[in-house]
Amino acid sequence: MPDVASSAATTDATLRERYGGEVPVGIRSGVGSDDVLALLYRHRSVRRFTDEPVDDATVTAIVAAAQSAATSSNLQAWSVIEVREPARVDAIARLSGDQQFIRDAGVFLVFVADWARARHLAADRSAPADAVDYLESTLVGFVDAALAAQNAVIAAESLGLGTVYVGSVRNAPQQVAELLALPSGAFPVVGLGIGHPDPADAAGIKPRLPQSVVRHRERYRPVESAEVERYDEAVRAYYRTQQQDRGWLQGVLARVRDRSGLHGRHTMRAALRRRGLASR
Amino acid sequence: MPDVASSAATTDATLRERYGGEVPVGIRSGVGSDDVLALLYRHRSVRRFTDEPVDDATVTAIVAAAQSAATSSNLQAWSVIEVREPARVDAIARLSGDQQFIRDAGVFLVFVADWARARHLAADRSAPADAVDYLESTLVGFVDAALAAQNAVIAAESLGLGTVYVGSVRNAPQQVAELLALPSGAFPVVGLGIGHPDPADAAGIKPRLPQSVVRHRERYRPVESAEVERYDEAVRAYYRTQQQDRGWLQGVLARVRDRSGLHGRHTMRAALRRRGLASR
Repeated sequence: MPDVASSAATTDATLRERYGGEVPVGIRSGVGSDDVLALLYRHRSVRRFTDEPVDDATVTAIVAAAQSAATSSNLQAWSVIEVREPARVDAIARLSGDQQFIRDAGVFLVFVADWARARHLAADRSAPADAVDYLESTLVGFVDAALAAQNAVIAAESLGLGTVYVGSVRNAPQQVAELLALPSGAFPVVGLGIGHPDPADAAGIKPRLPQSVVRHRERYRPVESAEVERYDEAVRAYYRTQQQDRGWLQGVLARVRDRSGLHGRHTMRAALRRRGLASR
Repeated sequence: MPDVASSAATTDATLRERYGGEVPVGIRSGVGSDDVLALLYRHRSVRRFTDEPVDDATVTAIVAAAQSAATSSNLQAWSVIEVREPARVDAIARLSGDQQFIRDAGVFLVFVADWARARHLAADRSAPADAVDYLESTLVGFVDAALAAQNAVIAAESLGLGTVYVGSVRNAPQQVAELLALPSGAFPVVGLGIGHPDPADAAGIKPRLPQSVVRHRERYRPVESAEVERYDEAVRAYYRTQQQDRGWLQGVLARVRDRSGLHGRHTMRAALRRRGLASR
């Protein structure tokens, strides 16, 4: 039986890292000792993997978890493409910011917003599928894919594996779609590298904004600069442990300034339309 | 210590429900005995709650889990509004398909795609925020909010609570945004009712498509009608246990046929623009 007191102490330490030193009031009241919460709290992206493979049965267990996530009206408007062939993984890596950890992961999954399946079923029955053309349908596909992907992450981590999301599969969605033979109506949402974490990796738990900034009671409360400045310091302290000199705010400002922060994704609307999701 | 053999047997039974009788090959190999996987596999939406409240500390623990999910470039482009005041909950319920379980939940959370925060921080520093106007930014906000919401679901379920997603908060996003005082750039993605499940509720685990339909190896494989017809039967068998006569395919065809299946959400693009997310 696990030692509940020591498990609670570990969760408390995890939460201190998660919030950069400050634990939200109320969280020490015993619920934090739950093992699943501890697993969720200690999430980090893993970008250094060992050579140990991720076998087929493991991916089967992970995809079953992904499928168990909620999906809008049980439409299941998503698919996942499991990529293992080195040449294909390498081609995706080159199109996705040339990030080496994509090649190093034991398996690479691409979660796809998938209206091709419903369209195909409608076409087989000579039924129209006009509602697919609306932006609402694109968003449902993206949300369904994201919910599934997040369950995959939790499942993988529960098995001792590490994961890293790769949003840059959207940098060149047309080429990625061709590599995966995606039909019209299927669009890459996010990649997920899964593998065995390199024990020598020193990356830790990245602090998040204070809960008071993200959680609003009844009505939205605009952020105060002092809250963000304190958080920026917590992020700086984290990056110092990684031998990096960076905070949070500069990254946010660079991302929103102009379309150069979008890595080519300012053409997303045209890319979706070209791939059969008119998003009107 | 938990009995591993009986835990594996329970997980196996859960998976039979999840896939409508057939368990994907490979999943019996031992990994299925993991407790976290079992929790993920047995997810169901809960729409009947007891009167027992969901206290503040519990929501704090759940939001900490939501914040621990990955977020694109650590932007944290989401917020959550916790709604408890009965009049506000009732107003949201009326705007969201008038579903009684929204009122019955112990607490109602609205996950929001939030670029208002970054815009506010940029404006305070007289910096531009032009990249917010692209559809890619809208999608990042939706995906960030979905990843956070899914972690909230897992956290709540690990505490013995039940959850139900409410996509219909997007039926009337302008009015919902006003009720929550959302600033320009913040948009409701999905609601989440959380509460103590009514033990008398007979709802079970809804079958999903066979893994062979959703999981593709290297390249997308179009669905075959026979696979869907078998699945439709499994869904019919599930609904029979709920005293309902319905399958899967008819629902999909009705949803994609024309914009009437979108419950007013065919205006999503205009609604986003009006709420400060130009989505161009």
